[in-house]
Amino acid sequence: MRIAIDAMGGDFGPRATIGGLLLALARHPELEPLVFGPREELETLIGELARAPQEAASVKRITIVDAPRVVLQSTPPREVYEDPTATSLYGMLEAVREQRAVAGITCGNTGALVALARRELGSVPGISRPAISSAVPTRKGGRCYLLDLGASVDVHARHLVDFAHMGALMARVVDGVAVPRVALLNMGVEANKGVARVREADALLRARGSSDFEYTGYLEGDGIFSGQADVVVCDGFVGNAVLKASEGVAQMLLKRLQANFDSHWSTRLVTMLARPALMRFKAQLDPVRHNGASLLGLNRIVVKSHGNAGAQAFAFAIDRAVREVEVGLPEHFRAAWSQDAATPVISSTVSDGRVDSGSRDSTRSDDSSLQG
Amino acid sequence: MRIAIDAMGGDFGPRATIGGLLLALARHPELEPLVFGPREELETLIGELARAPQEAASVKRITIVDAPRVVLQSTPPREVYEDPTATSLYGMLEAVREQRAVAGITCGNTGALVALARRELGSVPGISRPAISSAVPTRKGGRCYLLDLGASVDVHARHLVDFAHMGALMARVVDGVAVPRVALLNMGVEANKGVARVREADALLRARGSSDFEYTGYLEGDGIFSGQADVVVCDGFVGNAVLKASEGVAQMLLKRLQANFDSHWSTRLVTMLARPALMRFKAQLDPVRHNGASLLGLNRIVVKSHGNAGAQAFAFAIDRAVREVEVGLPEHFRAAWSQDAATPVISSTVSDGRVDSGSRDSTRSDDSSLQG
Repeated sequence: MRIAIDAMGGDFGPRATIGGLLLALARHPELEPLVFGPREELETLIGELARAPQEAASVKRITIVDAPRVVLQSTPPREVYEDPTATSLYGMLEAVREQRAVAGITCGNTGALVALARRELGSVPGISRPAISSAVPTRKGGRCYLLDLGASVDVHARHLVDFAHMGALMARVVDGVAVPRVALLNMGVEANKGVARVREADALLRARGSSDFEYTGYLEGDGIFSGQADVVVCDGFVGNAVLKASEGVAQMLLKRLQANFDSHWSTRLVTMLARPALMRFKAQLDPVRHNGASLLGLNRIVVKSHGNAGAQAFAFAIDRAVREVEVGLPEHFRAAWSQDAATPVISSTVSDGRVDSGSRDSTRSDDSSLQG
Repeated sequence: MRIAIDAMGGDFGPRATIGGLLLALARHPELEPLVFGPREELETLIGELARAPQEAASVKRITIVDAPRVVLQSTPPREVYEDPTATSLYGMLEAVREQRAVAGITCGNTGALVALARRELGSVPGISRPAISSAVPTRKGGRCYLLDLGASVDVHARHLVDFAHMGALMARVVDGVAVPRVALLNMGVEANKGVARVREADALLRARGSSDFEYTGYLEGDGIFSGQADVVVCDGFVGNAVLKASEGVAQMLLKRLQANFDSHWSTRLVTMLARPALMRFKAQLDPVRHNGASLLGLNRIVVKSHGNAGAQAFAFAIDRAVREVEVGLPEHFRAAWSQDAATPVISSTVSDGRVDSGSRDSTRSDDSSLQG
């Protein structure tokens, strides 16, 4: 399985991505990665990180492709969009477009990624806006896909309806949820609450014919983590704020919990005894930060890892991509949105006077994705 | 200090509000509450809850005002707005309007509260949109005011600027922060990120002359809890989603943490030893749920308690109102927004072709507050 890795652009540089790749290579013996970045830097780093004998064997499966330019988190997406030549981000996407790789993974600049990926890979016909989705853990030990997380900022009701279908398909195909429960994020659960586009999306979802998911209506922010829904839909600005705030709360709580154990407990023994439970607890929280986020609605598989992912986290993002390759996610998307399938048509509904035909739109990169 | 309490409309009914009031009466010997709700029900309940001798004395300070109609969480705000007669929510607001009480507290329907409060109490001249704000705990043991949390959904840049001033004033007057650090919630920290109204508000805040707060620029969701800002500004839809999601994460983590200690630890002894640290941890999280939220920009003090507040939580909301009375919050607002003060004018800036003069607007209730 050939995958393309953008080794650059994350907060911790290639040390995290290469470290993560080595972990993933050990877990997936079928992986043959193309790694994009400045060749010399990557070669030196791989030599340094892969010291154990079994890692030396893994390293032989890596092909480095020189990409001397790096897209920073702070680089304006428009700048990258206009001249992406020789960047590791673009190299990764080119490899995916030319089918030299079945999936691409990056922890770089989200806005640049979304804009370039739309242009280079094209959208699934019928889907006019891509979405980024990530699974968050729920109270009952399950997971919930939240989307969009920042690919599409200014959306209309019909885009939210598309996101509902996209998230449901993910839950069904990747996680085997037979009939996913899909909810719209809103400020209250009563019919009169919220902004116009959300109420309009609610009406469209209630009116739809498809039975491949159960639309459960509105859900408030706390419901995301309650296990009441498998998919929660919102626009990219709200989803981004909600996900990052959730990460922030989790980080704060962990720090405070640790401080409680460190400062108040009088005996070393008790802290030692408590450690395993605390460690298990921390491990359970990992999905909040560490699951790769999927870029949905495109013709190929692209996984966006968190910008501040460490090696473990980046390896999780690679796992995610491998899983999506195994289940053939893009084929499911194309089948679901094809003219003959039961699901589609929704995305061509004109609900606000603008027509966005998927095909005409598929290679366009509009403002919203350049901002993300 | 006469305060008006709406005893009805919360998820746990008057048992929680009266229970909370009894706690607050013990803490604040100067309190003389007017309590609105169905008289017989409240009298029976008070008789039942106030059994201890010192509580019997507290109870004498309570005046019950009969309000037979109850506004439910599910009642459409527009319905209440058109005919609020004899509801406990309206009774509470009337008492505040007529200055029979210096502050009002409710845990009822937010949308109905915001709409009625604007009409009955009027806005501070110069402030065209009210905001709800609550303090969330931060990593370093501090607090951060988040606003708006759902009073104003469809906002323009100039409203966000108003919110920045309002939040800064709260932090300064209520918490004594000399120069509050104020940030705008966005999807990234770079200048090109986010939606138009946020970028526009950023420009207005950078251009402003006032020095009573430090504008620190964009902040992402995780930054709310990092201690980097004393005030974080966003629209009511985003703020509501972010706050509720944060509560959801905190609840989930507590449940999971408890489960780890319950299921994995082999000895009863260790669980017993761990209990104090866990309890302290839970207590530290309380502010996320239990601080009353302030309805800002009105001529009087109104505190909105969480709909699912228990007695302890409702008592916190009363504490909040008492504190705002003590510091004279509305007077500070009027002074800051008066034509002579340094701060104002911003709210009369026309940034998108619409003029919202505060005075003309002050008693209008538009769609956004009726939805909230």
